[in-house]
Amino acid sequence: MLDLQKMRNDIDVIDTQIVKLFEERMKICEDVAQFKIETGKPVFDKSREQEKLESLGCKAHNDFNRCGVQELFEQIMSISRKRQYQLLQENGMEEKTGFVKIEDLKKEHATVVFQGVEGAYSFAAMHTFFGEKIKSFHVDTWKDAMKAIKTGRAEFAVLPIENSTAGIVQDIYDLLTEYDHVIVGEQIIPCEHVLMGLPCSSLSDIRTVYSHPQALMQCSEYLEEHRDWQQMEWSNTAAAAKKVADEKDPAQAAIGSRHAAKHFGLTVLEEGIYSNVNNSTRFIIVTREKIYCRDARKISVSYELPHESGSLYNSLSHFIYNGLNMTKIESRPIMERNWEYRFFVDFEGNLSDSAVKNALRGLRSEAQNLRVHGNY
Amino acid sequence: MLDLQKMRNDIDVIDTQIVKLFEERMKICEDVAQFKIETGKPVFDKSREQEKLESLGCKAHNDFNRCGVQELFEQIMSISRKRQYQLLQENGMEEKTGFVKIEDLKKEHATVVFQGVEGAYSFAAMHTFFGEKIKSFHVDTWKDAMKAIKTGRAEFAVLPIENSTAGIVQDIYDLLTEYDHVIVGEQIIPCEHVLMGLPCSSLSDIRTVYSHPQALMQCSEYLEEHRDWQQMEWSNTAAAAKKVADEKDPAQAAIGSRHAAKHFGLTVLEEGIYSNVNNSTRFIIVTREKIYCRDARKISVSYELPHESGSLYNSLSHFIYNGLNMTKIESRPIMERNWEYRFFVDFEGNLSDSAVKNALRGLRSEAQNLRVHGNY
Repeated sequence: MLDLQKMRNDIDVIDTQIVKLFEERMKICEDVAQFKIETGKPVFDKSREQEKLESLGCKAHNDFNRCGVQELFEQIMSISRKRQYQLLQENGMEEKTGFVKIEDLKKEHATVVFQGVEGAYSFAAMHTFFGEKIKSFHVDTWKDAMKAIKTGRAEFAVLPIENSTAGIVQDIYDLLTEYDHVIVGEQIIPCEHVLMGLPCSSLSDIRTVYSHPQALMQCSEYLEEHRDWQQMEWSNTAAAAKKVADEKDPAQAAIGSRHAAKHFGLTVLEEGIYSNVNNSTRFIIVTREKIYCRDARKISVSYELPHESGSLYNSLSHFIYNGLNMTKIESRPIMERNWEYRFFVDFEGNLSDSAVKNALRGLRSEAQNLRVHGNY
Repeated sequence: MLDLQKMRNDIDVIDTQIVKLFEERMKICEDVAQFKIETGKPVFDKSREQEKLESLGCKAHNDFNRCGVQELFEQIMSISRKRQYQLLQENGMEEKTGFVKIEDLKKEHATVVFQGVEGAYSFAAMHTFFGEKIKSFHVDTWKDAMKAIKTGRAEFAVLPIENSTAGIVQDIYDLLTEYDHVIVGEQIIPCEHVLMGLPCSSLSDIRTVYSHPQALMQCSEYLEEHRDWQQMEWSNTAAAAKKVADEKDPAQAAIGSRHAAKHFGLTVLEEGIYSNVNNSTRFIIVTREKIYCRDARKISVSYELPHESGSLYNSLSHFIYNGLNMTKIESRPIMERNWEYRFFVDFEGNLSDSAVKNALRGLRSEAQNLRVHGNY
């Protein structure tokens, strides 16, 4: 009969030795880093790592162990590199990212472009992020917003990238690929509707309610209590608010965001008539200059992968072996290349972190067209 | 001056020892597997692994090494588990997947449902996959096709899941979540248009060409050579072919797929008038029974993750540490749960592989609502 406790004790003895050897190895790696600092040699030498993996694999005594040994040392070498990048950084030899670190984003008096109309949810996202002291203008399409950044007409653009019930806005991902702009912030706006009317108006005056059909539907529970009100469908919630403000009829009300009421000088007659924490939109703030804030905690990158076995596996191991927490992965097809994808990965970190540098360095050498879309 | 060669030699000595210890450890793990086979104990004991990682971390002498040791042993334990699953399988103790292995899919005389009209690209995908000897019928929506499978009206459904230029069909992912059906095959259909007319007709007879606006645009280069032809926009390419077949006017032609020409008894007057290898659609074949073929090589799974730091990282490590090559990742928001996602992962493998079992076992214990959508 096999004795489980004895086997576990034997494993513990082996593991203690592996930990000891791992720490000895890390100590020598620090010396190697010192050597590289003195001589200016690069940390990552892909062909040497490949050779090393080959020769280590040959030391194993069966196929299963050969694979296992190689997987294991791929990770050990990644951890070693991470430590070396840390030491290089401590010695003031930072890896160039092309990004400039700043203390804070200068939001006041900024010129900001948004798609849609004043009073819409993108407008609300803009004012929530930047406050009120900005110059803003709107354009018809998301692409127009990207162009306004490129030509310098605006410093920042506000774009919806994802809705919590509908999913990602695929076009924005394609625009991030097309334009070389940088994400410097994000703003989540929950969909919350209020009933608004003229300042002189009160609930008992209302006879007609204007809004987008979807907003009317979302507020159906509230509207059930006011069956005598006529419901009128309008092109969007902001346009409905504008109509009520323009026509100055105290019997008219609109359903839309609190920001729309404020913008058009209307009074909130009833709030919380639809509030669903599960329906939010995430907006990104985009600019032209490659900057990131000292306290930025999220990084968005993208890269292309050839249609080869193992390529996605290898690319994600750079995040995992460096202990970087991925929060999102999306893929978009690459135009004119069948079944090849550009992957968009969001992960937690700052461009100054050595784990981040280690991952980006590895990705740059293995994936194609790595882009850092921003750190925010 | 530091001597790089000496440092590398020292590292080599350490690495050789680590390989030796790793192999000794694997040997004991095989004994543990033997014990588990005899006693029927489970391979994966999450709380024991957690305790083990904690105590190993404490043996390290600084924070960096503590993290490194834990990452390392997470992988070592995953490799060990994989070996144990292999041995369990060799001893006829297969992990239950709920799927039944079959030799081949029975395609002949199958009842197949497809969305769209006869002669459309989904129709082409169906006949390319199943051949001609089937009973087929069409429905208006993808959901109707899923329902036909559920009620048993059809054995198989053919659904478009991805286009190489437009990206994924998000609705199909949501339907895969809603219905408990299984993917048993896939078929890629390139978009290739031909000019078709009546069997009695020849190129010189043509005066009018019918097709979907997009197809007319795609063939604009060819149509430029025939400026005297009137171009008429039609609702879809199959309907255009049907119109030409029905009206029996030799001056009329349609643009669409070769399959549409064949289906409506039309002659191909000119082929290759638009052929773009970079515009293909991938269709999946769905059925109700949980089956997979012996030679199936691709697995589709999905699972939900809580909005917690590290959850995506942990879930993907099950694929990476088991050497499984992921080919695709998609995410869809979970209804009524803000910013939580269901991830859809395609990876290479067969449900009989021990690496696959190891990964699925780990995922099941860490992610929520793991679903195996099929092995094909």
